[in-house]
Amino acid sequence: AYCRDQNYELRGIGIPKSVENDLFGTDHSPGYASAARTNILNVMQAGILARDMQRHNKFVIYQTTGRDTGWLAAATAMARKEEDDAPHLIYTPEFVFDDEKFLTDVEKCIKNYGWVSVVCGEGLKYADGTSVGVSETKDKFNNIESGAMRGTSLGISLHRMIAGKFGYRGEFQITESLIMSDFVRASQTDLEEAYLCGVEAVKLANKGETGFMVSIDRMSDEPYIIRFGKIPLKEVAIAAKPMSEDYFNEERNNVSEDFMEYVRPLIGDLPEFTRLEKKMIKIR
Amino acid sequence: AYCRDQNYELRGIGIPKSVENDLFGTDHSPGYASAARTNILNVMQAGILARDMQRHNKFVIYQTTGRDTGWLAAATAMARKEEDDAPHLIYTPEFVFDDEKFLTDVEKCIKNYGWVSVVCGEGLKYADGTSVGVSETKDKFNNIESGAMRGTSLGISLHRMIAGKFGYRGEFQITESLIMSDFVRASQTDLEEAYLCGVEAVKLANKGETGFMVSIDRMSDEPYIIRFGKIPLKEVAIAAKPMSEDYFNEERNNVSEDFMEYVRPLIGDLPEFTRLEKKMIKIR
Repeated sequence: AYCRDQNYELRGIGIPKSVENDLFGTDHSPGYASAARTNILNVMQAGILARDMQRHNKFVIYQTTGRDTGWLAAATAMARKEEDDAPHLIYTPEFVFDDEKFLTDVEKCIKNYGWVSVVCGEGLKYADGTSVGVSETKDKFNNIESGAMRGTSLGISLHRMIAGKFGYRGEFQITESLIMSDFVRASQTDLEEAYLCGVEAVKLANKGETGFMVSIDRMSDEPYIIRFGKIPLKEVAIAAKPMSEDYFNEERNNVSEDFMEYVRPLIGDLPEFTRLEKKMIKIR
Repeated sequence: AYCRDQNYELRGIGIPKSVENDLFGTDHSPGYASAARTNILNVMQAGILARDMQRHNKFVIYQTTGRDTGWLAAATAMARKEEDDAPHLIYTPEFVFDDEKFLTDVEKCIKNYGWVSVVCGEGLKYADGTSVGVSETKDKFNNIESGAMRGTSLGISLHRMIAGKFGYRGEFQITESLIMSDFVRASQTDLEEAYLCGVEAVKLANKGETGFMVSIDRMSDEPYIIRFGKIPLKEVAIAAKPMSEDYFNEERNNVSEDFMEYVRPLIGDLPEFTRLEKKMIKIR
């Protein structure tokens, strides 16, 4: 408005950017696929280690960012090739969290696989709206801590629930911004699209457009085809775009094939690890 | 002994393996350099993000494994090229931890750089032997938790100290076993040496040797030259090999050039990131 008053020729074109993938008006946002890929590799590789260590440690909890939406947590399903691969359970802020159901889910996995890999988005809430990650630790003024902790203690809360109920040993991993800065493990598709979004923005500005954000519109999942569009800026940041219900299983503790079709082309190739068969052999 | 009694021809040759690098009798252990390299990349890349975000978040705490020794925490110094790069402060279990000194160190860094990156080994202890990471949270029987937490809440304790004293916002990152399973970012030197240790063990067994561990003996730092040796197994696992005092600075909050010479050849090349100069320019 100031620029307009001054008759200053300014054109404003937005470029989508959100590792949490929660912008409206675009199929996805640059940044998301790379952060997701780092999460996937973390869950996949730590899962192989955890599976081999199941005699000592029965569970591993991976906490990822995503206060309001589960896009990042959900993507870790890409780590799973066989049913018993990590992650077994994925909980996202789209649904109310229930202690009892959680512990039942955990027990079932440990019974079936011998161990359990749990992925959680940091923003999990109970039915009454309180955060699952709020620490019960009191600060020096005897207030319950939560602001300073910024919700990052969710992994610890879940750890405490499992250890408290079953007495198992396990670990929690809280990676916070590590996933948004991991250039080495970035998604190639993501890097290319980020660059092309910039090119598109310059083209729009050159045409005299203003007040838009470049959007990525998906034409097809397989082959993966996108084209760039534009959406008025004021329609973009109205709220965090939640995941569709169709992207989850009925139990709300895992994703659906619909979501896998959405996320697969964004991530790129993943490393293959050899898995030895467990086979008893008779000696003589 | 059982095999000897049975006249069963068994030859036992150990191969060093410890991400924590705490075996006696070998310059270093396969596994260490790869876990260290993942830590370095984590601290380096999250450090660049944290530096750019210093108006919002003043500190980032990175907790690594290493209950008794600081080898893994210390290696993150490789992330630092300029004085103000992450990590600024490194605390290891080799030295007694002091709250007051820690907060003074933190304050100094924030004054000098605008933010601070802290790396800590999980096993930090106070002068009276109590763990810095013991949670003050009570379990349902009103006991102070620590066993179930397995010391992993150190990062939170440090977070609480800084937020409590200065009121700053910041984050903590607890990666646990993620660093020991990150094949994608492994050190090439480490992968090669691990393989060659196996070859060496087979050679020793073929020669009829038994009761030894293959050792890596370093001949020169630069050029990096090693040769393989052997050490009696009973001399290896007597205790965790601590870092030498010469590997630290006088303040015990950082490593020395001696340590950098030790660790540099193990890690391999690190990515280079462009750093823009801050330069005020006059318009007209």
